[in-house]
Amino acid sequence: MKQGETFIRVRYAETDKMGVVYHSRYLDWMEVGRTEYFRQLGMTYSEIEKNNIFLPVIKAYCQYKSPARYDDLLRIVTTVTSLQEVRLIFNYEIFREDKLLTLGETEHAFVNHLGRPIVLKKHNPFLWRRLLEAAGEHTES
Amino acid sequence: MKQGETFIRVRYAETDKMGVVYHSRYLDWMEVGRTEYFRQLGMTYSEIEKNNIFLPVIKAYCQYKSPARYDDLLRIVTTVTSLQEVRLIFNYEIFREDKLLTLGETEHAFVNHLGRPIVLKKHNPFLWRRLLEAAGEHTES
Amino acid sequence: MKQGETFIRVRYAETDKMGVVYHSRYLDWMEVGRTEYFRQLGMTYSEIEKNNIFLPVIKAYCQYKSPARYDDLLRIVTTVTSLQEVRLIFNYEIFREDKLLTLGETEHAFVNHLGRPIVLKKHNPFLWRRLLEAAGEHTES
Amino acid sequence: MKQGETFIRVRYAETDKMGVVYHSRYLDWMEVGRTEYFRQLGMTYSEIEKNNIFLPVIKAYCQYKSPARYDDLLRIVTTVTSLQEVRLIFNYEIFREDKLLTLGETEHAFVNHLGRPIVLKKHNPFLWRRLLEAAGEHTES
Repeated sequence: MKQGETFIRVRYAETDKMGVVYHSRYLDWMEVGRTEYFRQLGMTYSEIEKNNIFLPVIKAYCQYKSPARYDDLLRIVTTVTSLQEVRLIFNYEIFREDKLLTLGETEHAFVNHLGRPIVLKKHNPFLWRRLLEAAGEHTES
Repeated sequence: MKQGETFIRVRYAETDKMGVVYHSRYLDWMEVGRTEYFRQLGMTYSEIEKNNIFLPVIKAYCQYKSPARYDDLLRIVTTVTSLQEVRLIFNYEIFREDKLLTLGETEHAFVNHLGRPIVLKKHNPFLWRRLLEAAGEHTES
Repeated sequence: MKQGETFIRVRYAETDKMGVVYHSRYLDWMEVGRTEYFRQLGMTYSEIEKNNIFLPVIKAYCQYKSPARYDDLLRIVTTVTSLQEVRLIFNYEIFREDKLLTLGETEHAFVNHLGRPIVLKKHNPFLWRRLLEAAGEHTES
Repeated sequence: MKQGETFIRVRYAETDKMGVVYHSRYLDWMEVGRTEYFRQLGMTYSEIEKNNIFLPVIKAYCQYKSPARYDDLLRIVTTVTSLQEVRLIFNYEIFREDKLLTLGETEHAFVNHLGRPIVLKKHNPFLWRRLLEAAGEHTES
């Protein structure tokens, strides 16, 4: 099972009056995790969209264990935990050094530019195979 | 069981290049739902914080059924679905007219300005009673 | 000279660790001001875009006199201060009650979906006339 | 005159329905530029705040020459262009490869945690000297 790893630095704009990062910003970072995951997979998300494949988020979940703060350097570990004909699940772990701050999960549909579901295996066999390899034993195809 | 209702208008800044609202923005709107819920309960969230009570989000969940778009007028229905000694769960439904677009849930801890858990019943009996009445049969105290 | 007026309530997500609203959020609110301005003018910005007219911001300016805070109810006063063949300037004043918190200005080009400049007077005489009337003596056409 | 340089990658969350980056996000990036500028100067902005010095933005200006897009790798060049007893001006240039996309400027006051103006030279001679050296001939002290 392939893992993507990327780093972000917390921005002032991402904090709130409680003095820590506002909770919805973590979802923006998970998208950063996915972006780098696809790049490391050999097909950027920009290229995926140019191939008329869109991956809208249909479910998102986040568990906040410990707050991130301004200027923290964070590590996002991204994994594909489930790949099916018409949907995909990503898992995320966000760390400051060795401390796990946040766990997250997003579920995505495969759709075209009209929002219609597509079968990825037929629509883009290359991306399908790459994801299949990445997901490893988590795949149910 | 008391329900809070509030309306928001989708902003251009909340859309993304897919042409619809970016998925993390819905969490910001759920906070708007909570803010208005507390106001309707008789104690604003600003007052709650002045009483040294903070409600950080410890879990968030969102299910996206249909996208919201720029300039949509949305209705957010907010409900307390669980109240316990040290935590609180809110449920949200976001509608455009009668169409349910998004379901959400956030779980909150009761903490003080140092982030230490507090027992709301002792710390602020007024707010506790108001939430208890609002939650109705969902309470487990 | 026509003025648009709209109200917004400051969201928790818009604050930062300094305890007040983060400075870039005011630009999002100015867009809310423009959106309501166009609605009051008789042509929503959504309709404008459907007519293949886009108004990207080419310059933005903001002066921060006093901070806005979470849950403040703010009044945004929007004015067209200059209308020319290929560009448009909006001015904004943001108030909490009678106190002026922020002054802003945005300059926009008229372009089509390809980003090519268009002459609004020819492309959409209705919108041009409405803006001309709204701008009043500020117009230089 | 010292220049700070930092890189950011455009996030999906930063785009809007026009398909390009939403204009207020550039201000968030300029803050990233400042953050790295202070780090390279030898005193992080976190440390500055711990020394009871805050630099709220009192004016911001942005000129958009060409749009940034999702997944672009951008270079932010940050310069101190004016340093005075009670205020500081930063200038920013944002590039994609050699193309200048955006010019910006922010003006900051030196205040304490109560928002009261402070004279930086007395309050923190180290930071004052470092900024003075960085600003070079732009200084008027």
